[in-house]
Amino acid sequence: MDKSFEGMNEKQNIFMSEAIKLAEENIKSGKGGPFGAVVVKNGKIIARGSNHVTSDNDPTAHAEVVAIREACKVLGSFQLDDCEIYASCEPCPMCLGAIYWARPAKLYFAASRHDAAQAGFDDNFIYQEISAEFTDRKIITQQMFRNEALEVFEIWKKSEKKIPY
Amino acid sequence: MDKSFEGMNEKQNIFMSEAIKLAEENIKSGKGGPFGAVVVKNGKIIARGSNHVTSDNDPTAHAEVVAIREACKVLGSFQLDDCEIYASCEPCPMCLGAIYWARPAKLYFAASRHDAAQAGFDDNFIYQEISAEFTDRKIITQQMFRNEALEVFEIWKKSEKKIPY
Repeated sequence: MDKSFEGMNEKQNIFMSEAIKLAEENIKSGKGGPFGAVVVKNGKIIARGSNHVTSDNDPTAHAEVVAIREACKVLGSFQLDDCEIYASCEPCPMCLGAIYWARPAKLYFAASRHDAAQAGFDDNFIYQEISAEFTDRKIITQQMFRNEALEVFEIWKKSEKKIPY
Repeated sequence: MDKSFEGMNEKQNIFMSEAIKLAEENIKSGKGGPFGAVVVKNGKIIARGSNHVTSDNDPTAHAEVVAIREACKVLGSFQLDDCEIYASCEPCPMCLGAIYWARPAKLYFAASRHDAAQAGFDDNFIYQEISAEFTDRKIITQQMFRNEALEVFEIWKKSEKKIPY
């Protein structure tokens, strides 16, 4: 194993330890669930996040979402080019979706979605729901007005103002 | 068809028209993608959202997430009990995950994920990635430090401070 690889592993350990430390601190502070995440760029942590769902009354304030929003602020960009995300738990579908939209280079996680389910969180259930046809989901879902919405997509396609993301 | 059912349909039409209007206005304002959403409770719109990804440098600022966060502020709760969400497009996995965490009663959408893909958005791609094993995903993903993270879940399970969500 060459030195640079050893060095990289050492750094990876530090970053994941930080994410897990944030998760543990979050239990003590009572701000939300036991989850933490950090965003790393060029070998440095540029943003931290922990779960603030219950303290902020924000169901989207998961550690990864909080860290991604903060990292984007720091970078002044809606993309996390060349960044790595370290999360104390496998991201739930919401957070994984956020990660795909932010497009970092790599993702590291510690506990799994099944471990999260064991600790009382809906992650695995939501993964199952997302894979189901919308007509079969637990939250009743109905499609309507598709043609009207398609007209808006046509306007978008022709718009000269649009910024792709 | 009885009157109450007619009345309900009429209201549903108004709510979805509002979501689609927000999507169209968003193209003109240049604030983000062509997506809008409203949250309804007791027959009234309590929150509106449109996509602000590019104007806010926030990849999580999709219409549904913006509307859910706003509705939760209005209600002072991290749950959207007895609420309905009207979205101009089928929610992407991030937004669908956010909807599952917020737990509204119903979801209505207009355009589909495939329509969104046709208009240049990654929704369908992200659905495919989320269903894949993490080892097979396009964003390189690695698990590490599971045992350390499990210790934090054990602390959570025993914590008396925890608020389930």
